[in-house]
Amino acid sequence: MLQISDKGKALPISPIRRLVPLANKAKERGIKIYHLNIGQPDIETPKGALEVLRNTDLKVIEYTASDGNKNLRKKMAEYFNKRGGNFNENEIVITTGGSEAILFSFLITLNPGDEIIMAEPFYANYISFATITGAVVKTVGSSIENNFALPPMSEFEKIITPKTKGIVLINPNNPTGYLYTKNELTELAKIVKKHNLYLYADEVYREYCYDGLEHYSVINFKDIEQNVILCDSLSKTYSECGIRIGAILSKNKEVMAAAMKFAMARLCPPALGQIVAEASYDTPQEYFTSVREEYIKRRNFMVEALNNMPGVYCPTPKGAFYSIVKLPVDDADKFAEWMLEKFEYNGQTVMVAPASGFYSDPKMGRNQVRMAYVLKISELEKAMEILALALKQYPGRVE
Amino acid sequence: MLQISDKGKALPISPIRRLVPLANKAKERGIKIYHLNIGQPDIETPKGALEVLRNTDLKVIEYTASDGNKNLRKKMAEYFNKRGGNFNENEIVITTGGSEAILFSFLITLNPGDEIIMAEPFYANYISFATITGAVVKTVGSSIENNFALPPMSEFEKIITPKTKGIVLINPNNPTGYLYTKNELTELAKIVKKHNLYLYADEVYREYCYDGLEHYSVINFKDIEQNVILCDSLSKTYSECGIRIGAILSKNKEVMAAAMKFAMARLCPPALGQIVAEASYDTPQEYFTSVREEYIKRRNFMVEALNNMPGVYCPTPKGAFYSIVKLPVDDADKFAEWMLEKFEYNGQTVMVAPASGFYSDPKMGRNQVRMAYVLKISELEKAMEILALALKQYPGRVE
Repeated sequence: MLQISDKGKALPISPIRRLVPLANKAKERGIKIYHLNIGQPDIETPKGALEVLRNTDLKVIEYTASDGNKNLRKKMAEYFNKRGGNFNENEIVITTGGSEAILFSFLITLNPGDEIIMAEPFYANYISFATITGAVVKTVGSSIENNFALPPMSEFEKIITPKTKGIVLINPNNPTGYLYTKNELTELAKIVKKHNLYLYADEVYREYCYDGLEHYSVINFKDIEQNVILCDSLSKTYSECGIRIGAILSKNKEVMAAAMKFAMARLCPPALGQIVAEASYDTPQEYFTSVREEYIKRRNFMVEALNNMPGVYCPTPKGAFYSIVKLPVDDADKFAEWMLEKFEYNGQTVMVAPASGFYSDPKMGRNQVRMAYVLKISELEKAMEILALALKQYPGRVE
Repeated sequence: MLQISDKGKALPISPIRRLVPLANKAKERGIKIYHLNIGQPDIETPKGALEVLRNTDLKVIEYTASDGNKNLRKKMAEYFNKRGGNFNENEIVITTGGSEAILFSFLITLNPGDEIIMAEPFYANYISFATITGAVVKTVGSSIENNFALPPMSEFEKIITPKTKGIVLINPNNPTGYLYTKNELTELAKIVKKHNLYLYADEVYREYCYDGLEHYSVINFKDIEQNVILCDSLSKTYSECGIRIGAILSKNKEVMAAAMKFAMARLCPPALGQIVAEASYDTPQEYFTSVREEYIKRRNFMVEALNNMPGVYCPTPKGAFYSIVKLPVDDADKFAEWMLEKFEYNGQTVMVAPASGFYSDPKMGRNQVRMAYVLKISELEKAMEILALALKQYPGRVE
């Protein structure tokens, strides 16, 4: 019988990409869409990295090493060693984006039925990778009223069972933009140590922290270095989402040996992306300074614009470039669809990611959306204007 | 407890890449290695494709659509529709190499414990992807004495059980270079139809068939179009293994809908590789003619050289650029290691892939290796000279 597998059936449709077919139809009708639904910044990729790509004298685009080019791994080690790590190039496996790093980390460490803990709302694709692995995701809640701070550590301990294998940390957080404090992280590390769990750490937005706050990486906690699996990506660091280059970094030799087996099975990560990635590490520090300033401007503009709309609440994120926003609507899924299908203003509309897909219980995000402040201020201005109008006209508006 | 998962433990080490650490050590000692172990041709990537990459005016390397750029999918559909298909761009999901196409196809269709059938020797990474899925691989044997022809179809029927979900076809075959006849394929299609199985078709070497023989694609069998999942890759077609671009093509809507969910979970395939891939489809037909001629020369040279060595047997492959070769050695794994660790001739040695990893029972390939004729004749000449010497000097030689 031709049947789809149980996992194929169970795999959720990505809330970030679910509405893409509707967006495509709107585009076919000639509608311009402001994309706040996806973390695709319009920030330029470092010029030096693009230059190296254009000047390549490659004659054959060959496979690379399964764990990626050695020079890239060396530069990556250097980058992380300036941020509290002590990695050498053999403690790194380059992956096809952060996505593959997460997938491999789960496959390496989780048996079907094993449990992992995440704070919710969470980056939805973690659920997909857990589903592929057969692992069960348990959640501790964080709430918009609390600006998505981690709940007390006792909440984590309450749901740890003998099947719990690890905790997922996303810091700065996607989708909430929350930046965890050193205190919160120290408490988390204690639990990881006490219960001997893996700590899957996704710190891909580390360069983008605001208001004078600094990112503190869990690679600084030397007493849990066997527990930490860092899942990295260059997509957001250097605004080069399309290169699909990420990495698994760990001091745990068993984990890295298994990572290498998974890496060999799929031969190698993208060769061209690795060229860009390696050159990206030579980007001057000013790049981050100016991009950070740009994100702060955008954030301030968007948060203020949103909070000025009646019935809307948007916390001020301290990192990354997302915010979970509460809207005065009956159902954010329906609202997002309505904006693409029924609404337009001067031939323009706005696309957002309904937050239901970022919660274990979709009801919890019913009146929330994730917005990414990844557009220029001039574009954000228009997007906010259109959104405000849409909220007024939406038939399912609630106060 | 920090433990590696059962799959992480069970995952085989790729026979193509297992000896890479030994090769790296040899290189550190200054040894030049002739790489016959991996299908990494030195054939140039089409100039036009590299040109497009160099001339890109990209300012931001963005995510692409999860199923890949529409223009690339359109060109790919066109390519396959000239070869017996009737695909439109919505029946294609671009993947990160053929590897991801295979992984997704298995994840989409197989539950843990489900069975798939492959002829052995087989492309080893299929076992890895089956392991990740939890599926069981059953094999029908083909033998070097028979030049690796498919066994009679009755052999397939013997091992079909209620758990059998599909058959993997690799044509032209990797690792044997065998090209299946239209008759063999027609018989195979009958079994697929009769038992309503999936047919996972890997035809990535289709452009490289020799001696006037033509490749016949299973996409021509319209009565099993719901069963066929084509797992493609551009790596070998255009000698661009590093771009990591492949695809899943199927007329089965359920399969494609599930493929899209897996594709969305990992966001998108490599953007730069897609640029090269799209341009590659504009390569003039003469490219294939001249590359094919080159492979024929290399094959003829290598096969003759091997069969002139005492105790060596190499069948004449009709497609792809591999051959399974029987050697007069006690253990091809040991021989391959010995060539990297203990042997050298004027500072040079040869790397081959022991065939044990291409068989369900490693004992079956004990005195066989896979060689890829992917080097220039001048290099192959040296490689054969060195191999002949190595076989003479190898302490484990058997007659």
